[in-house]
Amino acid sequence: MTTLAPKPRSASVTEMTEYVLPPHANVYGTVFGGQIMAWIDVCAAICAQRHAARPCVTASIDDMVFKRPVWVGQVVRLQAQVQATFRTSMEIEVIVWGENAMTGEHWPTVDCRTTFVAMDDSRRPTQVPPLLLATDADRMAQAAGERRRQARLAKR
Amino acid sequence: MTTLAPKPRSASVTEMTEYVLPPHANVYGTVFGGQIMAWIDVCAAICAQRHAARPCVTASIDDMVFKRPVWVGQVVRLQAQVQATFRTSMEIEVIVWGENAMTGEHWPTVDCRTTFVAMDDSRRPTQVPPLLLATDADRMAQAAGERRRQARLAKR
Amino acid sequence: MTTLAPKPRSASVTEMTEYVLPPHANVYGTVFGGQIMAWIDVCAAICAQRHAARPCVTASIDDMVFKRPVWVGQVVRLQAQVQATFRTSMEIEVIVWGENAMTGEHWPTVDCRTTFVAMDDSRRPTQVPPLLLATDADRMAQAAGERRRQARLAKR
Amino acid sequence: MTTLAPKPRSASVTEMTEYVLPPHANVYGTVFGGQIMAWIDVCAAICAQRHAARPCVTASIDDMVFKRPVWVGQVVRLQAQVQATFRTSMEIEVIVWGENAMTGEHWPTVDCRTTFVAMDDSRRPTQVPPLLLATDADRMAQAAGERRRQARLAKR
Amino acid sequence: MTTLAPKPRSASVTEMTEYVLPPHANVYGTVFGGQIMAWIDVCAAICAQRHAARPCVTASIDDMVFKRPVWVGQVVRLQAQVQATFRTSMEIEVIVWGENAMTGEHWPTVDCRTTFVAMDDSRRPTQVPPLLLATDADRMAQAAGERRRQARLAKR
Amino acid sequence: MTTLAPKPRSASVTEMTEYVLPPHANVYGTVFGGQIMAWIDVCAAICAQRHAARPCVTASIDDMVFKRPVWVGQVVRLQAQVQATFRTSMEIEVIVWGENAMTGEHWPTVDCRTTFVAMDDSRRPTQVPPLLLATDADRMAQAAGERRRQARLAKR
Repeated sequence: MTTLAPKPRSASVTEMTEYVLPPHANVYGTVFGGQIMAWIDVCAAICAQRHAARPCVTASIDDMVFKRPVWVGQVVRLQAQVQATFRTSMEIEVIVWGENAMTGEHWPTVDCRTTFVAMDDSRRPTQVPPLLLATDADRMAQAAGERRRQARLAKR
Repeated sequence: MTTLAPKPRSASVTEMTEYVLPPHANVYGTVFGGQIMAWIDVCAAICAQRHAARPCVTASIDDMVFKRPVWVGQVVRLQAQVQATFRTSMEIEVIVWGENAMTGEHWPTVDCRTTFVAMDDSRRPTQVPPLLLATDADRMAQAAGERRRQARLAKR
Repeated sequence: MTTLAPKPRSASVTEMTEYVLPPHANVYGTVFGGQIMAWIDVCAAICAQRHAARPCVTASIDDMVFKRPVWVGQVVRLQAQVQATFRTSMEIEVIVWGENAMTGEHWPTVDCRTTFVAMDDSRRPTQVPPLLLATDADRMAQAAGERRRQARLAKR
Repeated sequence: MTTLAPKPRSASVTEMTEYVLPPHANVYGTVFGGQIMAWIDVCAAICAQRHAARPCVTASIDDMVFKRPVWVGQVVRLQAQVQATFRTSMEIEVIVWGENAMTGEHWPTVDCRTTFVAMDDSRRPTQVPPLLLATDADRMAQAAGERRRQARLAKR
Repeated sequence: MTTLAPKPRSASVTEMTEYVLPPHANVYGTVFGGQIMAWIDVCAAICAQRHAARPCVTASIDDMVFKRPVWVGQVVRLQAQVQATFRTSMEIEVIVWGENAMTGEHWPTVDCRTTFVAMDDSRRPTQVPPLLLATDADRMAQAAGERRRQARLAKR
Repeated sequence: MTTLAPKPRSASVTEMTEYVLPPHANVYGTVFGGQIMAWIDVCAAICAQRHAARPCVTASIDDMVFKRPVWVGQVVRLQAQVQATFRTSMEIEVIVWGENAMTGEHWPTVDCRTTFVAMDDSRRPTQVPPLLLATDADRMAQAAGERRRQARLAKR
């Protein structure tokens, strides 16, 4: 059976906002790293499903760097965006900000690159719509994503 | 000591996005009402803090109407916006949408009106910056909020 | 097919007790508003099912007023009672108390009116047993509930 | 320093009601044993504090027997009561029932005996008010509790 | 239908490690008793399944003694081991240690005896492989478990 | 003030075991990626504290690859081990296995490299004891960790 490749789509940003409550914190009063990772995974998963129009599962995470903590009572903001698409997977960058809602101050706290795979109804990888590469910046982002993918595959 | 009234501020929208996981659901596979209420309270609390630049606590909730459920695996989107300000409190409307991230379909699921009180460092009510009433629509929203506030106070 | 209306039932009180642990609290050490809302929804849902003998879902919440906080290490007590019944729904009042279990002191913290709809096996609204209106107080409560219902419907 | 022994108090029942949601269940759809234990510990802790008028911590649990499961969508009801008091501790029996809120059916699901110790402000054991032994049944319960306590101490 | 008894198996130790985060703690900053019970139940359940090669459910818990608390930021270590097997159930001892990961200090915090029942596909009790009784110590542990089981049954 | 460098320590393995309950799963019945990440962060944090004898926070995560899912009712096992130490940080590899406790079958599910920084009492980076490089394998692991660190720094 032949499946036609899905049509290209432009990348859009998925945003999430979370308020840091005491159960999210470690003993130092800052958000526990594992909680931020869990929010990153959810935000990227929504972004992946919106792009692929299919259920998607986490395939890999790289370049996750923790820069500055967020404290209980502050806000965590996440932005996920598809950077490059491959045949059945896509690279999604997630950028996380801390925010003091009372002063408006905000700062980069974590960012990372995730890869998600789209699944068909039998949970097998299925085609992902390619990114619409309308500008030079789009084409450079896609090419950079492909180079990172080759580097990841070479490592295994 | 005299405290000058804070300067007017225009209302901005606070948005939250949540992915419905199995622990959020009731036995029917749809988001448990209490979970949506908890998200509404968080979204309105962030909105209140951003406006008041002070810690804020929930004072009342009204007109919460559940329209159509959201299922496990779907997305819940919340939008909170200050509708009217009073001396030490503000009325914040929260509108909640369900979204099927794979099809893009979305639908109103709940909305409600919440009131939050700003607190000073001794946990006593403190002044809230008034809304900047720049347009007729702004002035009508403020007036409608004041009428609802009178009706709430008359009920008690 | 004709379905006979279910027989009248007198209202009984559903009670819940919760101990406030650190994950229930906000950054001020008091129970997070959204957590109390979640407990209210559960308590009212049990009350609705006991009355209707059917699965029930939240339809609306009104007049939720937060009076005095409850602190970590204290106890939250909820009482839900059917106030009025309509064809496929019922109004349930929930009253929430804080308690210091060590001194016996207790105080009103929140109350509200919720409406729940009974569902048949296809998740469609189904008949609710009417309240047994045995006393003048019962009849007045039912009439007041009907007036509030008309006001709610008029608002939409 | 001499501390006067606190005055005797009669035993009262602490009741809790919980609705079984999907996160409380194991893979078989019934309440996970550890969740019931957590609720038992909370219910007994409230009961202990109400009797002792002091913070109390779990010292031991015995005779916990699981009889019949409770399913997601059903209700768990707990009743805790002081059975016997010792100098700085008390034996509290907890009885747990399952309930189908739609049919009114209910059944014993677990029961157990817990011992809690009252603490002074330095977290050291402190005196507990003795049970008011007004009837023969009260005196027999106290005597039986003392025998079980001797048996527990003999085991260690 | 005749079912052959499963072959004897030697007992192995199931270990779990948990880091105490703020949501696990009570208001005194130490792990809430009910949380430790929940971990004990999970650890014993894994141990039971590994031995019985069947789904297993909690039947009873005894001799649970709390010795010394564990604080937020410390580590909880659990060890579960089958002590004796009966026809369709087994006694599993669980020993819990606190650990200060930074100093290496560790201390006994709780221990208890649990009984789990193995279930067939219709959720009815099914045969458990007997323990391989290779040494005198193994035979003494089995005999002691049988005596405790008789005592438990005699109590009911 | 001069602080002497801490003495070398050999690497030991930190192990964790988790039972997959319904709240850990996504809508496909397998462990939600974000939950596994949260467990990885906890396991690596315990490992880091045991090595450094100091509070430690997550600095970065790389090479996280998801291989095969784990289902509700199965077991997740994690092993964390220090691979290389730098002045104030260390690279910790975490390997995650799925296990069917009833059959003994187990399979690699995720692995990754994390970096943790040790903190002094003012939350500033502080010295980490170097790994005891006793064998050629130890020295090769340290050298490989240093090369990965250089590559990470070069990327930023």
